[in-house]
Amino acid sequence: MSYTDYIFEGYHARVAELQKSDNPFATGIAWTGGDYVPLHQATVPLLDNGFLKSDLSYDVPAVWDGRFFRLEDHLDRFETGMSKLKLTSPISREELRSRLVEMVAMSGIRDAYVMMICTRGLRYLRAYAPEECQNLMYLMVMPYLWVSGEETQKTGASIAIVRDTVRVPTGSIDPTVKNLQWGDFTRGILEARERGAQYPVLTDGNGLLTEGSGFNIVLIKDGKLVSPKRGVLEGVTRKSVMVAAEKLGLDWEICDVPVSAAYEADEVMMVTTAGGVMPVTVLDGKPIGDGQVGPLSKAIWKEYWDAHYDPAVTIPINYR
Amino acid sequence: MSYTDYIFEGYHARVAELQKSDNPFATGIAWTGGDYVPLHQATVPLLDNGFLKSDLSYDVPAVWDGRFFRLEDHLDRFETGMSKLKLTSPISREELRSRLVEMVAMSGIRDAYVMMICTRGLRYLRAYAPEECQNLMYLMVMPYLWVSGEETQKTGASIAIVRDTVRVPTGSIDPTVKNLQWGDFTRGILEARERGAQYPVLTDGNGLLTEGSGFNIVLIKDGKLVSPKRGVLEGVTRKSVMVAAEKLGLDWEICDVPVSAAYEADEVMMVTTAGGVMPVTVLDGKPIGDGQVGPLSKAIWKEYWDAHYDPAVTIPINYR
Repeated sequence: MSYTDYIFEGYHARVAELQKSDNPFATGIAWTGGDYVPLHQATVPLLDNGFLKSDLSYDVPAVWDGRFFRLEDHLDRFETGMSKLKLTSPISREELRSRLVEMVAMSGIRDAYVMMICTRGLRYLRAYAPEECQNLMYLMVMPYLWVSGEETQKTGASIAIVRDTVRVPTGSIDPTVKNLQWGDFTRGILEARERGAQYPVLTDGNGLLTEGSGFNIVLIKDGKLVSPKRGVLEGVTRKSVMVAAEKLGLDWEICDVPVSAAYEADEVMMVTTAGGVMPVTVLDGKPIGDGQVGPLSKAIWKEYWDAHYDPAVTIPINYR
Repeated sequence: MSYTDYIFEGYHARVAELQKSDNPFATGIAWTGGDYVPLHQATVPLLDNGFLKSDLSYDVPAVWDGRFFRLEDHLDRFETGMSKLKLTSPISREELRSRLVEMVAMSGIRDAYVMMICTRGLRYLRAYAPEECQNLMYLMVMPYLWVSGEETQKTGASIAIVRDTVRVPTGSIDPTVKNLQWGDFTRGILEARERGAQYPVLTDGNGLLTEGSGFNIVLIKDGKLVSPKRGVLEGVTRKSVMVAAEKLGLDWEICDVPVSAAYEADEVMMVTTAGGVMPVTVLDGKPIGDGQVGPLSKAIWKEYWDAHYDPAVTIPINYR
């Protein structure tokens, strides 16, 4: 028995059903402007500046047990990101929402990782003004991805606070605009692997924590949750965690968090759409607290997954 | 009459010939692991981590008047870059060289921009060790690209030293590993456009110049050339410029260059494969010196293009 059974038992049953499916989209479906195609057949033109300059923004909502979770939060953030990069979606928000819902329904996938990417397109930005570039949209739905999977969540993940790489600063690339320029994260991932940790967390090179490779970091100390404010993506999962904290009557703050705070925390969580709220029990090779998943992490975790059934923040999918 | 006629007259004649060609590869040819395809038909899998994480390195040599220029320098740098990212080319250096030469020959393109990209491939790095990832190679040959074209070279380009964006620091992403994570350059390009300049040059946020969007910057003061040492790509064109300087008996140094040095320079050049040695005559809206292309820039420029016929550093292509 593990606290994680609460969601994983149902998840396993749905995955088993999905694996029996002969639906050609059961392993993923994509849209790249024309027809829907099986994900593994989808392609991007070699000349797309989303590839040749990583000139794009993206977002990732998830579907859990047949319900889109906080899709509007992701669409809001995606619109803001595109706007900051002077990208214009080739499709309206209504069409985007309805295609995503349609793709999930067609795939039959009940627990899905959903990606939307808007690229600059085939014209190179310097040669053309933003408004002269026909931006392109790529959409993907695939079976749910776990940054930290069931087994790791039971006992907690291990992270390393990275030494040789600092988070790209906000003066270079805006981390609130979700992007795929993962150079610092890639270096962090390689360092974590060398140091025997599963995930990296990066600092800002100026005494503060920022985030990990595709996840926000949340620390709990004396019953209060804190998470770094600057130099990070404004995570939807992080927002959900603070909503859960509020509900549980816990104090919380998004603020500057010194690196040392990670080493003094009672509990630590990695939070991201791909996996949710994932407890961390080892930091730089040493146990956090007693090395067990903490009680507040478990309480937040349960609130987080309960919210995936809250009609106020979910859209149920009408599977065919 | 312009100093630029020296190369552009021949170039125009060759472009006119190319435009008459009915060769399906005359507008570009690509290799993505299988058959050669016309460039505009070439695609990358949507799931390639070269797209989904910009996890890749690349390099760009050029062909001029039917000769590959400094190809070995580019292959050396590309190998070093792949090694630093723990990427392993799926093809040997010999095969890479011979495919590039073959592709140029097949295309009939006499003046070409050639790109080689090695991506992480379909496996995500955190889930798999580098050695477990089958890395992929993409090759492209297309008609020569000009960061600064003939007309601009005649009178010199205009640059802006960017204010709101700093170059991604070396502690985040290694600029000596040629990469497509252009977030800072993209911001710089947008700022330059807003300020009425053609190109951005970025600082390191710590009082020193770095480079521009895909080009190194070279300043000439009192007959000496300087170019920033840290936080930049170790440009092959920059190397060619220093070789040319040496030949002309000019002093040169790759070193820390304060931002103010740009405003005190006698002459300024942007240097990159896509266009070569390109004089700059306007900085932040004001003329540099007398606002004319300077004599040392012209001398370096001529040496640079003469070197494109030097058998020591070129490989002539055997067009069919």
